[in-house]
Amino acid sequence: MTTVEELKLRIRELENELIKCRQKCNAEDAGSHALLRPKIEKMSAEVVDSNPYSRLMALKRMGIVEDYEKIRTFAVAVVGVGGVGSVTAEMLTRCGIGKLLLFDYDKVELANMNRLFFQPHQAGLSKVEAAEHTLRNINPDVVFETHNYNITTMDNFTHFMDRISHGGLEVGKPVDLVLSCVDNFEARMAINTACNELGQIWMESGVSENAVSGHIQLIIPGETACFACAPPLVVAANIDEKTLKREGVCAASLPTTMGVVAGILVQNVLKYLLGFGTVSRYLGYNAMQDFFPTMSMKANPHCDDKHCRRQQEEYKRKEAERPKEEVVVEEEEVVHEDNEWGIELVSEVTEAELQAASGPVPDLPEGISVAYTIPDKEGAVPTGESVEETDQSLEELMAQMRKM
Amino acid sequence: MTTVEELKLRIRELENELIKCRQKCNAEDAGSHALLRPKIEKMSAEVVDSNPYSRLMALKRMGIVEDYEKIRTFAVAVVGVGGVGSVTAEMLTRCGIGKLLLFDYDKVELANMNRLFFQPHQAGLSKVEAAEHTLRNINPDVVFETHNYNITTMDNFTHFMDRISHGGLEVGKPVDLVLSCVDNFEARMAINTACNELGQIWMESGVSENAVSGHIQLIIPGETACFACAPPLVVAANIDEKTLKREGVCAASLPTTMGVVAGILVQNVLKYLLGFGTVSRYLGYNAMQDFFPTMSMKANPHCDDKHCRRQQEEYKRKEAERPKEEVVVEEEEVVHEDNEWGIELVSEVTEAELQAASGPVPDLPEGISVAYTIPDKEGAVPTGESVEETDQSLEELMAQMRKM
Repeated sequence: MTTVEELKLRIRELENELIKCRQKCNAEDAGSHALLRPKIEKMSAEVVDSNPYSRLMALKRMGIVEDYEKIRTFAVAVVGVGGVGSVTAEMLTRCGIGKLLLFDYDKVELANMNRLFFQPHQAGLSKVEAAEHTLRNINPDVVFETHNYNITTMDNFTHFMDRISHGGLEVGKPVDLVLSCVDNFEARMAINTACNELGQIWMESGVSENAVSGHIQLIIPGETACFACAPPLVVAANIDEKTLKREGVCAASLPTTMGVVAGILVQNVLKYLLGFGTVSRYLGYNAMQDFFPTMSMKANPHCDDKHCRRQQEEYKRKEAERPKEEVVVEEEEVVHEDNEWGIELVSEVTEAELQAASGPVPDLPEGISVAYTIPDKEGAVPTGESVEETDQSLEELMAQMRKM
Repeated sequence: MTTVEELKLRIRELENELIKCRQKCNAEDAGSHALLRPKIEKMSAEVVDSNPYSRLMALKRMGIVEDYEKIRTFAVAVVGVGGVGSVTAEMLTRCGIGKLLLFDYDKVELANMNRLFFQPHQAGLSKVEAAEHTLRNINPDVVFETHNYNITTMDNFTHFMDRISHGGLEVGKPVDLVLSCVDNFEARMAINTACNELGQIWMESGVSENAVSGHIQLIIPGETACFACAPPLVVAANIDEKTLKREGVCAASLPTTMGVVAGILVQNVLKYLLGFGTVSRYLGYNAMQDFFPTMSMKANPHCDDKHCRRQQEEYKRKEAERPKEEVVVEEEEVVHEDNEWGIELVSEVTEAELQAASGPVPDLPEGISVAYTIPDKEGAVPTGESVEETDQSLEELMAQMRKM
């Protein structure tokens, strides 16, 4: 039983802590304002220690990027500011992205300290708030917009859609790219639904629950497979973080795997936005064997999402309108004709190896499996592995999404 | 008279005020005193938000790592605390490594802000000092030892050797692993010389000057090629940072490439120390094509470093003493008999592709080239590409090293 004396002691302790914090805060505030550099109007390539952009602008001199300054014209939405999303946001901030929109409803916990970015003193703060504070400090040139909510509830989903379509750098314009860095199925499906409806290009990322594999995926509505076109591909079983928490266990995670996934994700973003190198459609990471499978998947004409099917029609129409020469040079990928999912391998795995290793449809490179199967509906049903059960069936979840 | 309820209310108010103040306060410094968590005696797997090790201990339940707690018994030296080294140190700190020894002589500059880890308010501080402050704050369970000096000068090199051989967690014992995260040839050669003499296992890392490729390499003295056995392999031309600075230009760098290299480096460290997965001998990263070549190289019997040759003799003797069965199962790699460097490919590149692509000796997978050639001396001279000249010739540098 707590006595009044103990409570009073606690109050005195807290008051002292608060005084100390405020003194420190004031000193630091003065300091931090003095140290917070002024905004930089124009990126410079000058090689001086005080220029935060010299190493990035050097990409032009090295012949890698034609117009690096263009980075400042782009707005990117990062959904999920956890182990992958926070590092993703930090990399984009340090690269000098124009605007970042951050979405998350979680709080920082000490249990997150095995991943990069958040620090113990931020425990208890909302992830978006803590992230914005750190990121603004790192690069005041970036415009930040944060939303501390769960995008899967109806009201929030509507608002999320609105910000994707109107939250760009120019007032009222859409963002340039959406990045999914979430850890559960519902949130991924919500992003998929929104991007299909809006025709918004996005990139998916994920890390397996055993912490030793991950992947990134580029999704162009109508052109590549969306999240509802095919079962999501995972390098190992992927279990919903919330399901695990209910069961009193947690997924394993490593700062290494998450750092690598954030790194290959933002690298793909830079290549896509600034137009250099080859943008990967799908890149996996198997840490146990240091194996990095790549591939690409076509959209499924029987996709459950009507907006995906509409985008496919639009894509076909546009492709038909393109001058013939362009269509011919388009792509040189190996197509597996017998593959119902239209998965094209552009991987290191040879066709022979793949044939030998192929289990149930769809054919997948070694080390990759599907997270779950899509319910029998359109007649094109693979018999892949199924994931640990959640409270709701996939069909229920999809029906829910459709109602939004 | 104050009631217990009123006191409790006041406590809640104060706690909220304190959280707000700390949030307002500059990230790093605010937390360092008041909120620094107490040291944790024993790692626990308990799934509570306040346990910083729950996600790491889950690796045991997932069947990935047999004994995760063992991480606390290891000491790792990180030489170079820049774009790769700082993230490497942070990952190891968050993983709960026993002890970190940091070596660097550079200061934090605003020009470093395009890479992860350091923050603008640390500009002007020594890198090791700034890093220790941040890292101790993140995980007070780790023991830190920092050295703010250049390891290539004679006195410092002697001290560096002493810390490698006596700076382990147990007093007087050697460290468990040395990681090279430096950006110039002299420092790499100094680490190589020290590790050959001490028989110390180490890992090399590097990022190309055009920022879009990198690599990691495991070096076991006597068994694998050391840094003097063969020209260092790079995925693209590698120019000394100091040479560039003199010329008023700078190397390009990206937080993405450096984050990926730090991630695959520390992943390899975890696999090596905790005994899971396959430890990579060499893993390259080509960001333009998302290509990750792997291979391994045997030690060169004609290596210029006498300590390397001595370690090779010792390794041969030990191998001969090993029971026959063990020797047989050892490795199943493809050996290219016609390869003077004893390079074994364990890569995705087929033998046919390699033959087609092979230029001058040594045969290397596509996208990898040598940084420079070793002077004609022992009769085994490849005619690879040579690097931009530095002030000193390779021979002069090697002679210098030998004098130390």
